[in-house]
Amino acid sequence: MQSVIRVELPEQSYDIAIASGSLDQLGEQCSGLSLGKKVLVVSNPVVFKHYGGIAIASLKSAGFDVYTCILPAGERYKTLNSIQKIYDVALEHRLERSSTMVALGGGVIGDMTGFAAATWLRGINFVQVPTTLLAMVDASVGGKTGVNHPQGKNLIGAFYQPRLVLIDPEILKTLPVREFRAGMAEVIKYGVIWDAGLFSQMEESKRLDQMRYLNEGLLTEILNKSCQAKADVVSKDEKEAGLRAILNYGHTIGHAVESLTGYRIVNHGEAVGIGMVAAGEIAVHLQLWDQESTQRQDALIKKAGLPTRLPAGLDLDAIADVLQTDKKVKAGKVRFILPTQIGVVTITDEVPADVIRQVLHQMQAA
Amino acid sequence: MQSVIRVELPEQSYDIAIASGSLDQLGEQCSGLSLGKKVLVVSNPVVFKHYGGIAIASLKSAGFDVYTCILPAGERYKTLNSIQKIYDVALEHRLERSSTMVALGGGVIGDMTGFAAATWLRGINFVQVPTTLLAMVDASVGGKTGVNHPQGKNLIGAFYQPRLVLIDPEILKTLPVREFRAGMAEVIKYGVIWDAGLFSQMEESKRLDQMRYLNEGLLTEILNKSCQAKADVVSKDEKEAGLRAILNYGHTIGHAVESLTGYRIVNHGEAVGIGMVAAGEIAVHLQLWDQESTQRQDALIKKAGLPTRLPAGLDLDAIADVLQTDKKVKAGKVRFILPTQIGVVTITDEVPADVIRQVLHQMQAA
Ligand SMILES: NC(=O)c1ccc[n+]([C@@H]2O[C@H](COP(=O)([O-])OP(=O)(O)OC[C@H]3O[C@@H](n4cnc5c(N)ncnc54)[C@H](O)[C@@H]3O)[C@@H](O)[C@H]2O)c1
Ligand SMILES: NC(=O)c1ccc[n+]([C@@H]2O[C@H](COP(=O)([O-])OP(=O)(O)OC[C@H]3O[C@@H](n4cnc5c(N)ncnc54)[C@H](O)[C@@H]3O)[C@@H](O)[C@H]2O)c1
Ligand SMILES: [Zn+2]
Ligand SMILES: [Zn+2]
Repeated sequence: MQSVIRVELPEQSYDIAIASGSLDQLGEQCSGLSLGKKVLVVSNPVVFKHYGGIAIASLKSAGFDVYTCILPAGERYKTLNSIQKIYDVALEHRLERSSTMVALGGGVIGDMTGFAAATWLRGINFVQVPTTLLAMVDASVGGKTGVNHPQGKNLIGAFYQPRLVLIDPEILKTLPVREFRAGMAEVIKYGVIWDAGLFSQMEESKRLDQMRYLNEGLLTEILNKSCQAKADVVSKDEKEAGLRAILNYGHTIGHAVESLTGYRIVNHGEAVGIGMVAAGEIAVHLQLWDQESTQRQDALIKKAGLPTRLPAGLDLDAIADVLQTDKKVKAGKVRFILPTQIGVVTITDEVPADVIRQVLHQMQAA
Repeated sequence: MQSVIRVELPEQSYDIAIASGSLDQLGEQCSGLSLGKKVLVVSNPVVFKHYGGIAIASLKSAGFDVYTCILPAGERYKTLNSIQKIYDVALEHRLERSSTMVALGGGVIGDMTGFAAATWLRGINFVQVPTTLLAMVDASVGGKTGVNHPQGKNLIGAFYQPRLVLIDPEILKTLPVREFRAGMAEVIKYGVIWDAGLFSQMEESKRLDQMRYLNEGLLTEILNKSCQAKADVVSKDEKEAGLRAILNYGHTIGHAVESLTGYRIVNHGEAVGIGMVAAGEIAVHLQLWDQESTQRQDALIKKAGLPTRLPAGLDLDAIADVLQTDKKVKAGKVRFILPTQIGVVTITDEVPADVIRQVLHQMQAA
C-alpha cells in the first residue's frame, strides 16, 4: 500500500511517496515527472552497495541514461569539496537543465545532492531517495540543502525543492541501530512540536530503540505523521520567515554540541535528543512547561535509546560561544524553540544566559 | 533627477534606482529596506580605490556596521575559490540572516557576491552597485548569479534577486574605454531583441565608442531603456522557462568564443558583439531576417568600437564542440536566438550545423 503526502508550495509542489518495497519503482515514479533523459545518482559506498543496483536497474528500465557519483560516507565529507566532485561528474556527462540528480542516501548525501542540483546550471531536477530514518522523516522533505563550512554546520546552502521524495521503509532494515535511534529523535520532535497523537502512539510502544521492536504499523504511522508534520510546516513557511523555525526545536543547543564534538562523538539525532532535553528544562525554568511533560518527553528520548546528558568533558563556556555563531542568532540574541504543551511550542529570544548555563550544568555527564 | 524602474517578481520585487552622483546616497537608499545592521561590501582593488570610500562613508553615516572583502579583479577569479573567501569573511564578522552583501563592481563582482549572498545561511540580503556599463544594463538586473567551472562559464550558480540596484552613471567616468564598449554590446542587444526605439536613438548618435561622445541625455536613455527591457523580460519569466532566453541573443556563439580564448583575449561584450553578427548572418541564411537589417545592426556594433570578426586563429571545430556543452543545449540541440526584425527575435533549435559553420567561416579574421 502506498501513501502519498503532497507538499504544497507556491512555486513547485511535490509528492512524498511512502511504500514498502518501492525502491524498484523509482524509474517508473520518475517517468511521470517529465524529466530529461540523463539521471545522475549520487550516493556513498555503503548505501550504494546495498541499494545502488536496484535503483539503477529501475531507472534504466524506465529508459533513463544513468550515471553515478559515489562520495565518501560521513558528515565530515559534507563540504564544498564534495560538491565540486559532483559538478565534475555533471560536466563529464554534460548534464542539461532538464537532467536530474537523485540523492540515494542519508541526510548528508541528500543535502549535498540537493545543493549541487540547486546550483548546477542554476538549478536542475532533483529527486530524494532517503535511506536513513532521519533523512526520511526530516532531511529529505522541505528543501533545505547545503554543506558545512569548516567552522560551522550548514552555513552554506540554498532552499531548493525536490520533484519527488520516494520513501521505501524496507531500506531501513540495513540501517545501523545507532542511526535508527538518531532518526527517532526527529520523530519525537514532531510529537512535541506538532502532533500530540504521534507522541501518544510512541508512548504506547514498549521500545523505540530498534526497528524490529516497533508494533506492526507503528513505523508506517511514524513515517506518515512525521512527513505530514514537516510538510504542513514547510507549506506554511517555505523560507523560514517565521513558523518553520519550530522545526529547530532541540537544534539550538544540539548544533552547538555537534559542532564542539567535531561532528564525530555525537551524531545529529543524538545531539537533537540532548537539545530537546535542554529545551524542555529551560521551558520548565521559565514556567512555560510543566515538570510532568518534560519527564514524559525525556522518557520517550530514553526509550529511543538516545542520550539525555551532555557528552563528557564538554566545556559550558564553549557551548555559549558557539551559540553566538549559530544561524538562528538574530541581532545577537540566541533564539530558542520552547514547548508549552505536548504538540505546541513557542519561539523566543528572551532566554537569560544564566538559565541556559544552569540547565547545561545539570545535564553534564555524571 | 532620479528614475526608478521597478522589477516586479512574484516573490520579491525591487527597484533599480538610476541617478547621477547617487553613490553617496547608498546608505540612505539601503535604510529604507529594513536590513540588519551588518553590511559586507565586496569589491576589487581597482573599483574599491575609486569608489570604496564614498560607498562605505555613506553606509556608515546611515548607521550600518560595514565590513569589506576585496577580491582580485578579473574573470579568471570568478571561481568557487573566491566565493569561499567571501564565506570566510562572512563567518569572521558573523553575518546573520538579516545582514547584507553589497556588490561594488562590474559583473564579475556582482555575480560572485550574488551567489555568496544566495548561499550564505541559505540566503541573505543582497544589493547591487554596478560599476561597469555592462553590469548596469545587464548583469546587475535579473537575479542570475554564479561562478565559472574550470571547464565552462557560469556553470555554477543560483537565481537570486537583489533588494536594490543602485546605478550612478558618474561611476562610468573612470571605466576603461574597452569596458565601455563591451557594455554597449548588451545595449545594442536590447535594441535588436526588444526596443526598436532605443536602436534608432543609437543610430542617430555619431559615435558610440566612448562615453564622452554620447549626446547629452543619450546615456540616461541607454541606461533607462536597457534596464527597462531587462526588467520587462525578467518579470515575465524569472527562471528562464521560455521568454527570458531571448536575453541570450548573441551569447550562444559569444560564450564559445569567450571560453575558447580563455576569457582573456576577448571580453564578454566583445564576444556578444561577435555573437550578434553571427546570429544576424544565420538569420539571413535562414531567411528570417533581411540583409539591410543585419547591416544596420553590424554598423551599430562597429560604431560602438566592437569587433565583428572572429579573433584570429580560432578553430571552427572547437567552436562547434563548445556549443555542445553550452547550458542552452536541450536534448543535444543547440538553441539560437535569431532576429526577425529590429526589436523582435525568435528562439529556435533548428539551425543546421553547416549553416553555423558557413557563417563562422565568413567571419574568420581576414
Ligand atoms: N535538509 C534538512 O532539512 C536536514 C534536516 C535534518 C538533518 N539534515 C542533515 O542530515 C545529515 C544527517 O543525516 P543522516 O543522519 O541521514 O546521516 P548520514 O547521511 O551520514 O547517514 C548515516 C550513516 O548511515 C549510513 N547509511 C545510510 N543509509 C543506510 C542504510 N539504509 N543501510 C545502511 N547504512 C546506511 C550512511 O552511510 C552513513 O554512514 C546532517 O548533515 C544534517 O545536517 C538536514
Ligand atoms: N548575471 C547576469 O545576468 C550577467 C549578465 C551579463 C554578464 N554577466 C557576467 O558579468 C561579467 C562581466 O562583467 P563586466 O564586463 O562588468 O566585467 P568585470 O566585472 O570584470 O569588470 C571589468 C573591468 O573593469 C574594472 N572596473 C569596473 N568598474 C570600473 C570603474 N567604474 N572604473 C574603472 N574600472 C572599473 C574592473 O576592475 C574589471 O577589471 C562576466 O563574468 C559575465 O558572465 C552576468
Ligand atoms: Zn535535525
Ligand atoms: Zn551578456
